[in-house]
Amino acid sequence: MLIVMKPAASEEQIRAVCEKIEALGYRAHPMPGAQRTAIGITGNPGPLEPAEFECLPGVAEAIPVSKPYKLVSRELKGEDSLIRIGLAGADVIVGGRELTIIAGPCAVENRDQAFRAAERVQAAGAHLFRGGAFKPRTSPYSFQGLGEEGLEILAEVRERFGLLIVTETIDPVNCDLVERYADVLQVGARNMQNFSLLKRVGRSAKPVLLKRGMSATLEELLMAAEYILAEGNYNVILCERGVRTFADHTRNTLDLSVIPAVKRLSHLPILVDPSHGTGKRNKVLPLARAAVAVGADGLIVEVHPQPDRAISDGFQSLDPDQFDELMAQVAAIGAVLGRTMRLQPAGAKLE
Amino acid sequence: MLIVMKPAASEEQIRAVCEKIEALGYRAHPMPGAQRTAIGITGNPGPLEPAEFECLPGVAEAIPVSKPYKLVSRELKGEDSLIRIGLAGADVIVGGRELTIIAGPCAVENRDQAFRAAERVQAAGAHLFRGGAFKPRTSPYSFQGLGEEGLEILAEVRERFGLLIVTETIDPVNCDLVERYADVLQVGARNMQNFSLLKRVGRSAKPVLLKRGMSATLEELLMAAEYILAEGNYNVILCERGVRTFADHTRNTLDLSVIPAVKRLSHLPILVDPSHGTGKRNKVLPLARAAVAVGADGLIVEVHPQPDRAISDGFQSLDPDQFDELMAQVAAIGAVLGRTMRLQPAGAKLE
Amino acid sequence: MLIVMKPAASEEQIRAVCEKIEALGYRAHPMPGAQRTAIGITGNPGPLEPAEFECLPGVAEAIPVSKPYKLVSRELKGEDSLIRIGLAGADVIVGGRELTIIAGPCAVENRDQAFRAAERVQAAGAHLFRGGAFKPRTSPYSFQGLGEEGLEILAEVRERFGLLIVTETIDPVNCDLVERYADVLQVGARNMQNFSLLKRVGRSAKPVLLKRGMSATLEELLMAAEYILAEGNYNVILCERGVRTFADHTRNTLDLSVIPAVKRLSHLPILVDPSHGTGKRNKVLPLARAAVAVGADGLIVEVHPQPDRAISDGFQSLDPDQFDELMAQVAAIGAVLGRTMRLQPAGAKLE
Amino acid sequence: MLIVMKPAASEEQIRAVCEKIEALGYRAHPMPGAQRTAIGITGNPGPLEPAEFECLPGVAEAIPVSKPYKLVSRELKGEDSLIRIGLAGADVIVGGRELTIIAGPCAVENRDQAFRAAERVQAAGAHLFRGGAFKPRTSPYSFQGLGEEGLEILAEVRERFGLLIVTETIDPVNCDLVERYADVLQVGARNMQNFSLLKRVGRSAKPVLLKRGMSATLEELLMAAEYILAEGNYNVILCERGVRTFADHTRNTLDLSVIPAVKRLSHLPILVDPSHGTGKRNKVLPLARAAVAVGADGLIVEVHPQPDRAISDGFQSLDPDQFDELMAQVAAIGAVLGRTMRLQPAGAKLE
Repeated sequence: MLIVMKPAASEEQIRAVCEKIEALGYRAHPMPGAQRTAIGITGNPGPLEPAEFECLPGVAEAIPVSKPYKLVSRELKGEDSLIRIGLAGADVIVGGRELTIIAGPCAVENRDQAFRAAERVQAAGAHLFRGGAFKPRTSPYSFQGLGEEGLEILAEVRERFGLLIVTETIDPVNCDLVERYADVLQVGARNMQNFSLLKRVGRSAKPVLLKRGMSATLEELLMAAEYILAEGNYNVILCERGVRTFADHTRNTLDLSVIPAVKRLSHLPILVDPSHGTGKRNKVLPLARAAVAVGADGLIVEVHPQPDRAISDGFQSLDPDQFDELMAQVAAIGAVLGRTMRLQPAGAKLE
Repeated sequence: MLIVMKPAASEEQIRAVCEKIEALGYRAHPMPGAQRTAIGITGNPGPLEPAEFECLPGVAEAIPVSKPYKLVSRELKGEDSLIRIGLAGADVIVGGRELTIIAGPCAVENRDQAFRAAERVQAAGAHLFRGGAFKPRTSPYSFQGLGEEGLEILAEVRERFGLLIVTETIDPVNCDLVERYADVLQVGARNMQNFSLLKRVGRSAKPVLLKRGMSATLEELLMAAEYILAEGNYNVILCERGVRTFADHTRNTLDLSVIPAVKRLSHLPILVDPSHGTGKRNKVLPLARAAVAVGADGLIVEVHPQPDRAISDGFQSLDPDQFDELMAQVAAIGAVLGRTMRLQPAGAKLE
Repeated sequence: MLIVMKPAASEEQIRAVCEKIEALGYRAHPMPGAQRTAIGITGNPGPLEPAEFECLPGVAEAIPVSKPYKLVSRELKGEDSLIRIGLAGADVIVGGRELTIIAGPCAVENRDQAFRAAERVQAAGAHLFRGGAFKPRTSPYSFQGLGEEGLEILAEVRERFGLLIVTETIDPVNCDLVERYADVLQVGARNMQNFSLLKRVGRSAKPVLLKRGMSATLEELLMAAEYILAEGNYNVILCERGVRTFADHTRNTLDLSVIPAVKRLSHLPILVDPSHGTGKRNKVLPLARAAVAVGADGLIVEVHPQPDRAISDGFQSLDPDQFDELMAQVAAIGAVLGRTMRLQPAGAKLE
Repeated sequence: MLIVMKPAASEEQIRAVCEKIEALGYRAHPMPGAQRTAIGITGNPGPLEPAEFECLPGVAEAIPVSKPYKLVSRELKGEDSLIRIGLAGADVIVGGRELTIIAGPCAVENRDQAFRAAERVQAAGAHLFRGGAFKPRTSPYSFQGLGEEGLEILAEVRERFGLLIVTETIDPVNCDLVERYADVLQVGARNMQNFSLLKRVGRSAKPVLLKRGMSATLEELLMAAEYILAEGNYNVILCERGVRTFADHTRNTLDLSVIPAVKRLSHLPILVDPSHGTGKRNKVLPLARAAVAVGADGLIVEVHPQPDRAISDGFQSLDPDQFDELMAQVAAIGAVLGRTMRLQPAGAKLE
C-alpha cells in the first residue's frame, strides 16, 4: 500500500499517518518528493483497506500495490532519486544531470599501483575510485585481496586524490570493517541474493552499489534493492554488469535494455560496468559509449596502470591512456543527451 | 588459404593465380581492395602448401587460414566492405560513413498503409523501405503476408517514393519471385541456418540482409554469411536482432557487443534491429541510440502509420512521429562518431 | 474451435459437420478416436459461435480453443496418437507400448559403413535406421552428404536389413526426392521454423520426425507441429535433442522435462536424441536411460562402425558394442515403466 | 600438486610428507583411499617441483594438477567418497550403493505440519528430513522462516522419527546456530558463490549439501566445493537443482547431464532436487525417475502434508501419497542400476 499525501500536507499530518501505520504493527517509509510526500507501508501480512487511510487529514490517495516491490518503485516516487555520496553528503550526486564515473583497478595490489591508477583516473575526471580489498574469487587458490591493508590504501587514495571510495563487502561481519573505510559499499553480482548481506547494508549509513546477478531477472534485481530500502537505507545505486547466456564472444552479455526498463519501473539510478559486462578490453570503449547513449547514469570501469601485470582481470582493464580516450568519447555522447561530465575534455568528435 | 597479391600485381597476374587455383579443382574468390587484391581459395579438402602459390609472379604471401570462415574474414580483406544497393549499384552504400536507415511496417497490409508509412519514413531520411510480403509466423493461423500482391505494392513504393526495397524471402523457390521485386533480399532469423536458402541467395545478383538467429553464436552468424559469399555473392549485410536468454523484461536480449566483435573479425557491415531486439516500443529509441554509439552501420526499424491497428508486431512498431524523433537522436549520436545521415535533422541536443 | 461428436455419431453426421465447416470457407480436420471423433476447425479469421455447430445432429459440444495450437492438442484428442510407419502402414508403431529405437550414423558415408552399422543396430533390436544424405552443416566447406547416392544406399539398407529409413529433408524441393526413398522425413533442429518446409512435409504421405529447435520453447515446438498437421499430415513424431544454454560441460543441455510437458499438452509421441543432446559419447548411455525413465516413447541414437573415423559427429557416436550395452540398459529401465522392446536382451541388471 | 603414496607406505611416511609440505608454508590434505593415500597440496603460489617430493620415502608419484580444482578431483582420489552423516558418523552413508532420499517441506511452518510430513516420509523410507528454518526469499516481505523455533522443531523431528536433519544456513554467523541443530548444513543455490559462507561451513564438523547455483557452470560448482574441502571439511554432497534458461515450461531446466559429468571429474556424491528443478508438482515424479536412471546418488524432494496450504513452494510439493508413489517408482528404477533403498516397496512394475 502506498499513501500519497496532498502537496499541501503538513509535517504533522505526515507524522500522524506514519504513527497510525506503526500502531497497526506495520512499518512506514516516508519518501519526500519535490511536490509531495509518499509513504510506503511494509510488513503487512495481507492487503489493507484503502479507506482506512484515505480518511486521514492530508492524505490524497491510498494505492494498493500490484508489483512485488514497493519502495524502489516509480509508483511510490515519481522523481528520480539522487544519491548523495561523501562525508558532507553532497560531494557527488548519482542520478542527476552529471554522469558518474567510477574507475580503478579490479583489486588493490599495493600502494604504488593504487596511487598510479588514482592519479590518472582523477585527472581524467572520475568521481570515485574503485578497488577490491576483499575479492570474491571462483577459486580458493586465487588472490583474495589485501584485506584491511587494502582498505587503508584506499583511504590514503581518498585523502591524497580527493576521490571517494567504492569497495566490495562480502558478508555481514566483514561489512563492519569495510563500512569504516568506504564511501560506497559494493554488493557484488555473486551476492545479489545474499539476503543477510543485503539486510546488513540496508542498516548502513553508507550508499550501496548493487550489481545485478549473473542470471537475475529485472524483478529479482529490484527485489534485492527492495531488501536494502526495506531496512531503511534508501541510497541504492543499481549496476548492470552483463548476464550469462550461450553467447561466447564476450565473457558476459551486456543487457543494455535493462537501463530503460529500470528507469520506467524504479526511481533508483543505474550505472553500467562495461569491463565485466564484456570481459574484453577491446569491447569496453564501444559498450561504454552505448551505455551512456541508452541512458545510464554513469559507468564503472576497470583501469590499471599496467593491465598486463594485473593480478586479476587484467584482460578487461584499460590502461590510463585508453581511459582518457573513453572519457572523451563518453563526454561527447553524454552531451547529446544533455548529460555533463566533471571535466569537459577538449576533443568532442571521435572520428 | 588466402593469396595476398603485391600492390603492384597486374590484372594478368591475378588472373593467372585464379586459373592455377581452378586448375587444381578448387574455387578462386578474388576480392579487390583499395591497396591490393586478395584471393580466397575454397573447396580444398585439406590444407594447401603455401610455397606452391608464393612462387607465382605478383604473389606477396600465401596465408593458411585458421578460422573456419575465410571469405567473410578481415584476414582476407582488411578494409570494410561497402555494399552498393540499387539498380545502378550506387544508390545507397551500406558500410560507409553514412548510416543506413531501413524503416517500414512489419508486414505490408495494403497499399494505403504502405504508402502512408513510406511517405513518412522517406521524409524522415530513411534510405530503404522494409515490409514483409511473405511472413514466417509461429502460428499457421496467423496472417502470412499478402504474397505477390505485397511485392507489387512494394514496387509501387519504390517507384513513388524513391525508397529501395528490403523484403524477406522464405525458401529457394520463393526467392525466384522475391528477387524480381526486391533490392535487398532479407534472410530472417529463423532461416539463418536454412542452408538451401543461403545457397540460393548466394547465387543472386541482389545484396542480402542476413539476420542473426535467435541462439546463433558469432561464429555461426559469420559461417552463415560465408555460405552466401562462397556461392559468389559478396554483398552481405549482417544484422543483430536480439538473442534468446532467460531475461524477461524484453522479448529478446539485444547483444550490442556483437557489433565491435564483427568489426574485428569481418569486413562485412552490420545493422541493428532495435524493434525485434527489444519487442517493446518504449525501448526502441534508447536502444537505437546505443546501437549507433556502439558502432553499427545503421538501423532497421519497424514503423507503422497506426501501430495499434497493425496486423503483426504493432506493440514494437513506432508511429511516424516517434520515428522522426528517433532519426533526430540517432543523427546526433552518429555525428559524435563521424557518421552522417541522408537528411540532417534540425535539433541535435536531446535533453 | 473443436467440435466433439457424440460417441454414437454416424459417419454421415461427421461428414455433414465437415461439409458445413468447408461451406463456411474454413478447413475441417476430423480426428477419429477410440471413443468418439473430434473435428478441428482451422482457417477461421476470428472466433466462431459454438451454437452454430451444437445444433447439428451428432454434435456433443463445440469448444472454443484457448491455446494457440489446436490439432496437436490433447483437448482435441485425448488418446495418444499412434504413428504407423512403413509401406503397409503398420510395420512400426511409434507412441505405443513398445519403445521405438532409431539408430545409425550421422551421415551415410559409403555402402560399407552403412551396411556395417545397419547389421549391428538391426541385430540389437532397432526399428529404424537413421543416416543423413543431405547434411545441414554450419560450414559450407564441411561434408554436405552424398545426396541421392546416399538415399540409394539407405534404400539398400531397408531392402537388406528390413530397417525402415529416417533421413533428413532440407528444403521443399529436396523433399520431392527424399520422399521417394525415406519412410520417415526428418526435419532438423535448424529447420524447425522453416515454415515452407513444414508446409511441404505437411502435404506428404510420409510420417515426419520433427526435432526441437536449439532455442525453441515448448509452445514453438507444438506450433511447428501444428503447421504440419494443419496441412493434413497427422503423423508427426516430436524429438527433444537438447537446447542451447550457458552450460559448457555438454554441447547442448538435454531438457528432459519437456517430455512430460508434451505428454500433458499433446497427443503426439516424443523421442529423445541423447547423441546431439549431449554431444559427448560418454554421456549418451546415462541420458538414454534417463530419457526412457522420464517417459519418452523411444530414442534416436548415433551409431557408427568406427566412430573415430566418422566424417561427422564421431565424438558423439557410439560404436556397435556400446549400442548393444545401451539397448540392454534401456530395455531394463523401460520394463519398469511397462514399455517393451523389439528384442528382449538377456541381462537385465546393470550393476 | 598431488602426492600419490605407494600402497605399502606407512603412516609415518605419510606424516613425514605432510610435515615437509607444511614446513614449506603450504597446506597438506591427506586423503586415504582403499588402496593408497593421496596428499593434495594447496596454498602454493606457483608450480612446485615434483622431484622435491618424489625423493621422499613411500612416495610413488608427484603429479602437477592441470584442473583448477584439486581436492574434489578424481585425479586426487579415484574412489567415490562416502559421506557419513549422523552423530556416530555412520547412520546414513551418501554415495554408496543405497540411494539417499531427503524429503520434507520447503519451510518448517509449525510442529504439526513438520510432524505430519516427517511421519509419512519416514514411513516411506526417507533417510533425512529437510525443512527450512531460515529461508532465502526473493522478496523481503515473504515468510522468512521460523528461525531458531524452526530448528527446535527439526530437532524434535529427529528425536521422534529418527530422521537426520538437513537445513539451510544463510550466513557465517547464522551457521553457528544452525550447526547446533542440523546433521547436514545446506548451502542454497543463491549462496553457491557466497565464499564467506563456503569457508565457514568448510570449518564445520558437519557434512555440507551444496546446491548448484542457477547459472553455475560445472567448473564453478566444483570450485565452490573446493572452497569447502580446502578448509578441511571433506564431507560435501553436491546437488543439481535446475539452471536458468530461456525455456518456460518449467521454472528451471533440470540439467541431468551434469550427473555423469560430475562422476567423471570428481569423487563427491551428487543428488538431484526434482522439486526446484522443475517447479511443477506434475513433473517431480518423472524427473525423479530420470535422475536415478542417469546415476544420481539420491534425491531431495519437497513433501508437504497439505501442499495447497503450504506457505511457500506448495505448487512444487508432493503430498504424502504422491511421495509414496515416487518412492516405489524410484526403487524400481534404482534396482535396475543395482542401487538399493532403505525400504523395499512392494510393487515394482509401474505400468
